[in-house]
Amino acid sequence: MRLLFLGTGTSQGVPMIGCDCAVCASADPRDRRCRSSLLIQGDRHILIDSGPDLRMQALARGVKRLDAVVYTHCHNDHVMGFDDLRRFCEMTGRPLPVYGSAATLTALQRVFPYAFDPALQVSTYVKAEPHEVVADREFHLGDTGLIPLTVPHGNTPTFGYIITVNGERRAAYLPDCTAMTEAMAERLRAIPLLIIDGLRERPHPTHLNISGAIAAARRVGARQTLLTHLTHHVSHADRAQLLPAGVALAYDGLALDL
Amino acid sequence: MRLLFLGTGTSQGVPMIGCDCAVCASADPRDRRCRSSLLIQGDRHILIDSGPDLRMQALARGVKRLDAVVYTHCHNDHVMGFDDLRRFCEMTGRPLPVYGSAATLTALQRVFPYAFDPALQVSTYVKAEPHEVVADREFHLGDTGLIPLTVPHGNTPTFGYIITVNGERRAAYLPDCTAMTEAMAERLRAIPLLIIDGLRERPHPTHLNISGAIAAARRVGARQTLLTHLTHHVSHADRAQLLPAGVALAYDGLALDL
Repeated sequence: MRLLFLGTGTSQGVPMIGCDCAVCASADPRDRRCRSSLLIQGDRHILIDSGPDLRMQALARGVKRLDAVVYTHCHNDHVMGFDDLRRFCEMTGRPLPVYGSAATLTALQRVFPYAFDPALQVSTYVKAEPHEVVADREFHLGDTGLIPLTVPHGNTPTFGYIITVNGERRAAYLPDCTAMTEAMAERLRAIPLLIIDGLRERPHPTHLNISGAIAAARRVGARQTLLTHLTHHVSHADRAQLLPAGVALAYDGLALDL
Repeated sequence: MRLLFLGTGTSQGVPMIGCDCAVCASADPRDRRCRSSLLIQGDRHILIDSGPDLRMQALARGVKRLDAVVYTHCHNDHVMGFDDLRRFCEMTGRPLPVYGSAATLTALQRVFPYAFDPALQVSTYVKAEPHEVVADREFHLGDTGLIPLTVPHGNTPTFGYIITVNGERRAAYLPDCTAMTEAMAERLRAIPLLIIDGLRERPHPTHLNISGAIAAARRVGARQTLLTHLTHHVSHADRAQLLPAGVALAYDGLALDL
């Protein structure tokens, strides 16, 4: 199984529109962050979140196949590329299974009603096949298992996902996360790879910051940790070298074989 | 006044995800088409439509200022970058005036309710100041006048816009258009610049094709015509040389001083 990071940025991405800061002006491709999204390439190709950069991400990384989309939550930066999923339906001629909490599926249906209603369908539209997922109840897409994990993130019900293969935990993906709760810590104990919201140095009311993410990773004894969902306050080259052993910054295009 | 084409593509853009055709694989930058959008840079900077590529378009063209957004209609490829307008609010600290038909404003409020409701506001969100516009009733943004024109486009109520300066018509922008009605032709007679939906060679039920757009331009006696809203079936270099005098293909990044 391969994990491919399609986006490692926050809601405004990096560079931000109209910003001339050193990171937004950086020539380092690791400082160019699309909105957060992860592609799991196993026997099935599973996208986690379809943010507004989906088309550009798919073109940049040569993504030509998706078998399912799994959602963490319904904030704009995680769902607004939904309509660009139409190409994946068009290429297969089949509806695309989409997985998320009841709240996320309701939000998607409010914004993109035509994708869920056969009466509103046109041949070239997205056709979504909704599947509600429930906290702590593992579901399988081919050989890949996903365990939805309730993650605090402001007022928005949010899932992180533990990714398993043959019942064995391989990684966890928590791009938007305010805190490591006791219930989360139990399930993430000694996880081989923790991919977690790192945002920036300064604390934020609905996201962990870098030191908070590192503390959370230590608490659960994650063997490797990748920080994602990063703002333009984080210079990859400068910040990466200050991280403790076993912790690194994710970047767009990073691929990991697990 | 300058017109800057931010996007000249259809709903899926060019290249399309997962397509290896000659145009999608072309190295000619004029064959790379973001979703349709036009920026009017006069004493006010006015964006027509905020499609899903808005962030990338703003970055690619150095757009750092917007004073208003004007909508043609509420299809995804014309509105789904709306949330990325937040940066323009953040930079000025002011709400952004948005202009559109009642139907378009209602659709925007359904999808992005927080932008229109002070009770849902957070400091970094889009703050939209809605202005309903009415067919044939000119409105002014600084020195620029805009006359909404009822344009047929499938079942979706759609406006084109005639752009005026000091009461003089300079251009018309009709990116989504099925036909030239008699009422449209009257208002567009001898327009100096007609920017119109050209799509592709093959007819389409809700868009003009290239020959239909050329016929429409001839009928009104447009002095210059630019075809926009083009699919991956149109190779810029190949198709441009076959066009009659006074007709050209628009492309992303094209800037015209009027």
